[in-house]
Amino acid sequence: MKNNLELDNILKELPHGGNIYRAAKICKKAPSEIIDLSASTNPLITSREILKKIQKLFREISIFLDKYPDPECTQLKKIIAEKYKISEKAILCGNGSTELIYLSIRALSPDKVLIVEPTFIEYEKVTRISGVKKINRIFDLKKEKILKKLKTALKKEKVQAIFLCNPNNPTGWVIEKKKILEIVSEYPDITFLIDEAFIEFCEKESLLREATFYPNLIVFRSFTKFFGLAGLRLGYLVGNEKLIERLKNYKEPWSVNMFAQTLGVFLLTDKNFIKKSLQFFKKEKQYVETALQKIKVEFFPSVTNFYLLYLPKGLDLTKYLLKSGILVRNCYNFYGLNENYIRVSLKKRKENQKFLRVLKTWLKDLL
Amino acid sequence: MKNNLELDNILKELPHGGNIYRAAKICKKAPSEIIDLSASTNPLITSREILKKIQKLFREISIFLDKYPDPECTQLKKIIAEKYKISEKAILCGNGSTELIYLSIRALSPDKVLIVEPTFIEYEKVTRISGVKKINRIFDLKKEKILKKLKTALKKEKVQAIFLCNPNNPTGWVIEKKKILEIVSEYPDITFLIDEAFIEFCEKESLLREATFYPNLIVFRSFTKFFGLAGLRLGYLVGNEKLIERLKNYKEPWSVNMFAQTLGVFLLTDKNFIKKSLQFFKKEKQYVETALQKIKVEFFPSVTNFYLLYLPKGLDLTKYLLKSGILVRNCYNFYGLNENYIRVSLKKRKENQKFLRVLKTWLKDLL
Repeated sequence: MKNNLELDNILKELPHGGNIYRAAKICKKAPSEIIDLSASTNPLITSREILKKIQKLFREISIFLDKYPDPECTQLKKIIAEKYKISEKAILCGNGSTELIYLSIRALSPDKVLIVEPTFIEYEKVTRISGVKKINRIFDLKKEKILKKLKTALKKEKVQAIFLCNPNNPTGWVIEKKKILEIVSEYPDITFLIDEAFIEFCEKESLLREATFYPNLIVFRSFTKFFGLAGLRLGYLVGNEKLIERLKNYKEPWSVNMFAQTLGVFLLTDKNFIKKSLQFFKKEKQYVETALQKIKVEFFPSVTNFYLLYLPKGLDLTKYLLKSGILVRNCYNFYGLNENYIRVSLKKRKENQKFLRVLKTWLKDLL
Repeated sequence: MKNNLELDNILKELPHGGNIYRAAKICKKAPSEIIDLSASTNPLITSREILKKIQKLFREISIFLDKYPDPECTQLKKIIAEKYKISEKAILCGNGSTELIYLSIRALSPDKVLIVEPTFIEYEKVTRISGVKKINRIFDLKKEKILKKLKTALKKEKVQAIFLCNPNNPTGWVIEKKKILEIVSEYPDITFLIDEAFIEFCEKESLLREATFYPNLIVFRSFTKFFGLAGLRLGYLVGNEKLIERLKNYKEPWSVNMFAQTLGVFLLTDKNFIKKSLQFFKKEKQYVETALQKIKVEFFPSVTNFYLLYLPKGLDLTKYLLKSGILVRNCYNFYGLNENYIRVSLKKRKENQKFLRVLKTWLKDLL
């Protein structure tokens, strides 16, 4: 009885992806038994070769556990600066990019914010709790229409800040850098908050370097997704030096733990990991896309490691999958979407296969 | 030249304790070579026996690195609740207690705040950046006078929130629980923010349980000091359930990393660690107090693992110590104090001895 009751509340219980703890409770398994396709994190971080190196690092730094982490993240900023050929002064590291998104809104304190929807639901949450007076939105499920709608909206009503997730979560598309920059240049009074949590899949569209000299552009980067560091929390933002100084006034000290800083340095300098991950995802994308086409499941073209699927009776599927221990992100609480939109992330072949197998069975039962 | 210049700027460069990274740069050593008496963290966490257990834990959980941490900190809250016999619903975990102190002020959004000085400088910082209109202060270096001054101040002008660090950083005294509760009861409209970062040294004065039923009382606890978990960031607050629900609306998700959650559970349940640490500090306190008395250095009586010393030419001593690789907390930027107040924390015997030796030499040179 209790179990069913919780399964009925599945949407309310799982407002975000990645909560394997609640999911496990609902389907009466251990968290480690959940196949988590709801969080778009890179599973290769726990592959044997990388894990061995990471465990060695953990052993080495554990003797400094009683030391505060470097509040400046000096070493990590140095590596980021070298990699992207930018100034260290243009970088601010955080406890996941979420801390920095919250921090930016608090520091900028905009009256009106525009959110390009459908997108990451935390943008709305942070504006709601930070005294923002009005949230405007534009919404479309066709990528081609987004920028036109944005321009029209800006002509109609001025805002002080815009949230744009690029590549976009949950649709998986990427808007060309050039096109975004046109609008950034046209509206110097609007701060563009560009969340590049998934940009490693198409680095050429990154606005990271531009953010160091456009005064109205902030770029957020994350170690959670492509680098798979979800458990330790690490992100950074890039902006012009003046802005960074302003943001620092609002920042809590020591927010980035020592382990995250160390792993950030390690992952950015391990070229093999980046190369292997790109190859791995390319293969899995081909495999899963072909399989989905074969069973005629509608999905949005994606440059990232996740896909937005459209499936009538999506809530039923979400429950059906969870009964088999597979957690997906039901997009019921994304603005403009509903429970028939489901986001699934790519994991290792075996897990992707299991998902496809259960999905197929469900589709068959449906007929 | 450059080195001297940096040594001259030592105060500006080190506004907080624990920054072994900057200190190392100033005295041209490696961070690991710094004897850090500026951060009051328990060095026993890296003693061989405990470290071995911790390294085993790290190895075990590293395979979950690509999973998001539990945003609810379910397991950790369960252990805290059991230990203190309170409800899990009265607990909120954070990325160090600093996150929760910032969060509380943002959520409560008080117009006027009173700070009991001298104390942890972050209270002032968070009020300054959170739109608090007025900061009142009371200040005394005699513990007996503090509460009387507080009562007088409250009669003169109402505030919405009060910061009280108990035991107090940097003076090291503890105010009796009973006396604080009297004022908490007398002023139900004022929220009392009690920072118990060092309460493990005198648990009987903790207001943790009271915070679950007094609607105007919040208690902050930390794993940084007594448990020595500075590098991983972990803290929690205790308050009544209604307040916790309100605070949750302002909280960033996933702020407490998976490693901190796991170590928190481990340290709270390892009774040996708590017992051994208390014994260890008792011994070191006796040793250092006797030594300081012998060389006639003035210090404040302390219930904690740190001492506030008063030394004319304190800035000179701070520099002198750092030249020997010893970092202390010069209290120049604590309200009401100046550069002749120095806070030193207890580390292992060998390090305490080295500090006393260098201090003695400096005193001799002074004559």
